[in-house]
Amino acid sequence: MQVHAIIPFKPSNPKTRLSCVLDRNEREALARAMLDDVIGAVGAAGCRITLLCTEPFEHALAETVVLDGGLNEALNQVLSGMDTPVLVIMSDLPLVNPRDVIQMLATGADVAIAPGRGGGTNAIFMRSPQTYHVDFYGASFLDHLRIAEENDLSCEVIDSFRLSTDVDEKEDIAEVLIHGNGMCRRFLEQSGFVLSIEEGRVGVKRNAHEQTL
Amino acid sequence: MQVHAIIPFKPSNPKTRLSCVLDRNEREALARAMLDDVIGAVGAAGCRITLLCTEPFEHALAETVVLDGGLNEALNQVLSGMDTPVLVIMSDLPLVNPRDVIQMLATGADVAIAPGRGGGTNAIFMRSPQTYHVDFYGASFLDHLRIAEENDLSCEVIDSFRLSTDVDEKEDIAEVLIHGNGMCRRFLEQSGFVLSIEEGRVGVKRNAHEQTL
Repeated sequence: MQVHAIIPFKPSNPKTRLSCVLDRNEREALARAMLDDVIGAVGAAGCRITLLCTEPFEHALAETVVLDGGLNEALNQVLSGMDTPVLVIMSDLPLVNPRDVIQMLATGADVAIAPGRGGGTNAIFMRSPQTYHVDFYGASFLDHLRIAEENDLSCEVIDSFRLSTDVDEKEDIAEVLIHGNGMCRRFLEQSGFVLSIEEGRVGVKRNAHEQTL
Repeated sequence: MQVHAIIPFKPSNPKTRLSCVLDRNEREALARAMLDDVIGAVGAAGCRITLLCTEPFEHALAETVVLDGGLNEALNQVLSGMDTPVLVIMSDLPLVNPRDVIQMLATGADVAIAPGRGGGTNAIFMRSPQTYHVDFYGASFLDHLRIAEENDLSCEVIDSFRLSTDVDEKEDIAEVLIHGNGMCRRFLEQSGFVLSIEEGRVGVKRNAHEQTL
């Protein structure tokens, strides 16, 4: 049965913690590049894709729905009416590739959770979404484990560095330059970002003369 | 053929970036607890274990050698004389479990690298260590990829959140409280550390009255 992937997406003024290195237009382009990487991976894994957006938005490879109310409420309303397995995956995971998604969908458990750093949930697969509900924000990873247990659902934790890597802060850009190979990396390189090694630690810097976007 | 695991270890005054929340004795106990987690995983995976230490140190489950000179020089001197496969793995990976190690050792490639965050290398497996050399510090992940290529060795990148998670800073403690289940987690809990969720973000705080160690 085809898995339905739901990707929450904020087209306008996203990733404000990157304002130190990217202006608003650039942050919107970055978010779009990351979304394209996620859509590419999820689509190659065979999923049907719906973007759950904070405002009207169009994408050639996915249907879009405008979010009505909070993210959890909207997601749970959608989940309660689904009769196919569902994957909810964040839009800011530029390292994800089809193999990672296929691995998640192949779980033998009722629910599979890919944690993000800091207690978050970067992707969650539900074989029977009517029997589950999501609770993003805060320590959502532990909440999602608990919700599975309360509903007597088996749960697999997906151990993936790529799925754990979301891009929120300047330091995260280094991960994309080191490990990425998709649209987000291309955008960052075209925007002049390069790795910078100072005192043995890896960071990024931006070369002004390459800001051609 | 039994794999020889080499674990660099600094017994005295380690993890100074954690001085904000742990005094020196506690940081030494933390480092020891993390080492025990790594030794447990590597030992259960069937490896013979040598600790490469910055000073004399004894451990019931591993032989110890005192480092002579810099880490890279010492490691490469050891590697050049090895006729068995070698796994070099960091001592500060408290989430690692035997399955992670077994997965690494089962690679079909000549070299397998588990990246850490920020461009580091948290573990590297070499099937024929005489044909390879290591270069830790800085962007060692990219350096290790390059060294494999220069030596015509196939290389697999191990995608593991647990292997990518080393503990250097206060934020990393949260990962252990969320995902760990070994000696390091026990030490942190006995030291009064608990998760703290403020403004939707997960951190840690330390309860003074539980500082019983």
